[in-house]
Amino acid sequence: MSEVVKKASLAKQTTGVLAGLTTDQKNEALLAMAAALRQEAESIIAANADDLERGRKAGTPESMLDRLALDVSRINGIAEGLQQITDLPDPIGDTLEAFERPNGLSIEKIRVPLGVIGIIYEARPNVTVDAAGLCLKTGNAVVLRGGSSALSSNRRIVEVLHKALAQTSLPADAIQLIEDPNRSSVDEMLKLNGLLDVIIPRGGSSLIQNVVLNATVPVIETGAGICHTYLDKGSDPEMAEQISLNAKAQRPSVCNAMETLLVHRDFAAEHLSALGEAFRKVNVELRGCPETVALIPWAVPVTLEDFATEYNDYILNIRIVSGLDEALRHIDEYSTRHSECIVTENAEHAARFLQEVDAAAVYHNASTRFTDGFEFGFGAEIGISTQKLHARGPMGLPALTSCKYKIRGTGQIRG
Amino acid sequence: MSEVVKKASLAKQTTGVLAGLTTDQKNEALLAMAAALRQEAESIIAANADDLERGRKAGTPESMLDRLALDVSRINGIAEGLQQITDLPDPIGDTLEAFERPNGLSIEKIRVPLGVIGIIYEARPNVTVDAAGLCLKTGNAVVLRGGSSALSSNRRIVEVLHKALAQTSLPADAIQLIEDPNRSSVDEMLKLNGLLDVIIPRGGSSLIQNVVLNATVPVIETGAGICHTYLDKGSDPEMAEQISLNAKAQRPSVCNAMETLLVHRDFAAEHLSALGEAFRKVNVELRGCPETVALIPWAVPVTLEDFATEYNDYILNIRIVSGLDEALRHIDEYSTRHSECIVTENAEHAARFLQEVDAAAVYHNASTRFTDGFEFGFGAEIGISTQKLHARGPMGLPALTSCKYKIRGTGQIRG
Repeated sequence: MSEVVKKASLAKQTTGVLAGLTTDQKNEALLAMAAALRQEAESIIAANADDLERGRKAGTPESMLDRLALDVSRINGIAEGLQQITDLPDPIGDTLEAFERPNGLSIEKIRVPLGVIGIIYEARPNVTVDAAGLCLKTGNAVVLRGGSSALSSNRRIVEVLHKALAQTSLPADAIQLIEDPNRSSVDEMLKLNGLLDVIIPRGGSSLIQNVVLNATVPVIETGAGICHTYLDKGSDPEMAEQISLNAKAQRPSVCNAMETLLVHRDFAAEHLSALGEAFRKVNVELRGCPETVALIPWAVPVTLEDFATEYNDYILNIRIVSGLDEALRHIDEYSTRHSECIVTENAEHAARFLQEVDAAAVYHNASTRFTDGFEFGFGAEIGISTQKLHARGPMGLPALTSCKYKIRGTGQIRG
Repeated sequence: MSEVVKKASLAKQTTGVLAGLTTDQKNEALLAMAAALRQEAESIIAANADDLERGRKAGTPESMLDRLALDVSRINGIAEGLQQITDLPDPIGDTLEAFERPNGLSIEKIRVPLGVIGIIYEARPNVTVDAAGLCLKTGNAVVLRGGSSALSSNRRIVEVLHKALAQTSLPADAIQLIEDPNRSSVDEMLKLNGLLDVIIPRGGSSLIQNVVLNATVPVIETGAGICHTYLDKGSDPEMAEQISLNAKAQRPSVCNAMETLLVHRDFAAEHLSALGEAFRKVNVELRGCPETVALIPWAVPVTLEDFATEYNDYILNIRIVSGLDEALRHIDEYSTRHSECIVTENAEHAARFLQEVDAAAVYHNASTRFTDGFEFGFGAEIGISTQKLHARGPMGLPALTSCKYKIRGTGQIRG
């Protein structure tokens, strides 16, 4: 039996116990996990040093090493995250519907765990803890497959969590870490119907596409964001600049950052040159349509491929459009249906944009950067779904649940 | 461009208009479709005769031909079904959540259509109309791929529906029928990410398994049902017999029929022989464990493979168990997680069964045959989901929807 099948089977065997735990039992387990991480910070940092050492030898870029690195403060932050999950309401057992049929059958629809959740992710070892915490709080077992670059860290973290759980009513086998660094262990997870109930990929677009295109287990697709902001005719120039700068440059590496700015021709004539200057000051490279380049001579000509690219960087496409309809057509063609924004003082245009744009989050006069579980007030997030099935947008705890119907009768049979 | 890509693209182009239709506009379209089907019944029956003729020549069994056959009464029934869909509440546009954040952002979660739904199904031409009606009522476009045995019927039905829609505000292109009878057209649909938002397979287990194992488009898995009934110690013998007979024999061909009866040893000692007699009277073949065969000598010895088989026929497995725990273990091993039942007068056992059995519908003292959209009062159903993602159990109109977040601000940016 392969490591993947063996560990997924162990995880599955815990689902019955997990589904029956009380909220208190789950919270106690999360707090025990948090305490153990703090206590064992030193050994985790030592394991992390091995990963960093290997990464340096392999010539990993500094920015990647930074994502991988753990210190006491980061470990405390991770432990703090687990404690915060204990404060969130437990959705399991909630009655979603309850009704009685004319034949006397009483039907209740109850929230239950999904079962076993597979998480496939990259370098950040904090995902190991965050994902485990969110899955356990919702009564799910979790099979974690992190990047091989973080294997020593992840292995030590999971050892610490297992030891912590041994003192609680939550079975330690509910957290499984796949240690096989070969790609074949990912491939095997993707086909593990019957043992995994869902797979959630977290990482770059090639990781996500591999999961989406090869999984036979149901998937929740997350992350890819080619987000647009449209500056309408007559929009407030100060607000337009603030929102555009924030959407692009406050943190360009994330999925809810803007990649393309669409600007109404009249607004552009009056304000685009100043806006270009504002972007120059924060070191954003601009790629523009010919009209944009006429107004901002230092902008590079944009290509159609640029419109289809998620830069995650200090680069922005600018296209001048004739109005709302052309903006909507551009968005419909290039959007990954994550987050889209209109800046306008025109209520009718705002209403049309919010209605007609097909995306998880549509904004009027606010930065796309708000698409986030914490900013939405969900208290945590396992990712941002860019598919339409099951969950869309920031996924809080309810996204990690399913339901079942409990039907109580007095001998009813079907006629 | 292939037929599949061309037609899916046409369907996708209608999604913007569909999402904006009022409930009245959608209902008018459904009524126009119903009226057209009644008016054109003769030409539909003529097309159906071609399918039946081809089927007879190919040696199709009579029971299959019966599922394929249309007459005036069946067409009226199908039209009636469309009219019933107009009576159902329209979920699109419903506000699922609405809240304001401390920074003043107003966030609304709104129900929206899924987009384009692919339906892959077999011989029954009524599915063509039912599925189209349910998809359109929820603002979705639909790409239908029916069995080649019903191609003439389906083609004529869709012509009639298109003609009816031309007189309404609902774009006719929202219904597309794939006519290519080759398996390759199914394979192509399964990989049509970006054009199809979800695929729902309806049919036998080989059709469903092909879709689940090969689709890269998200799938809602429906249908497979290895359902159990457990007769507990001290259960009411009359109720136990009524429920068992109903679950097995009222309509054995459907997914919510029982395949295996689990019987407590003490109950079996007193009542199994009489129960066997009751099954014999309705021509159910029994396959039993050794203890069962000792009590019902004409029962055939059951195999482990039998326990894993969905007969959809007048065949029943019987296994005698030592109690609730053994019953739960058997169900956990063989259940397809569709519908499971306990017959008991013991409230504690009932509660444990409803809590611990992992299935879409869990019953206490009622037949598993009730797992059905109409019996649940949903007024219609597109299928019964046996997966845990997105929808579980009978799927009414809300299962054909997604959501989006509308966020309204006054210039908020993220700090």
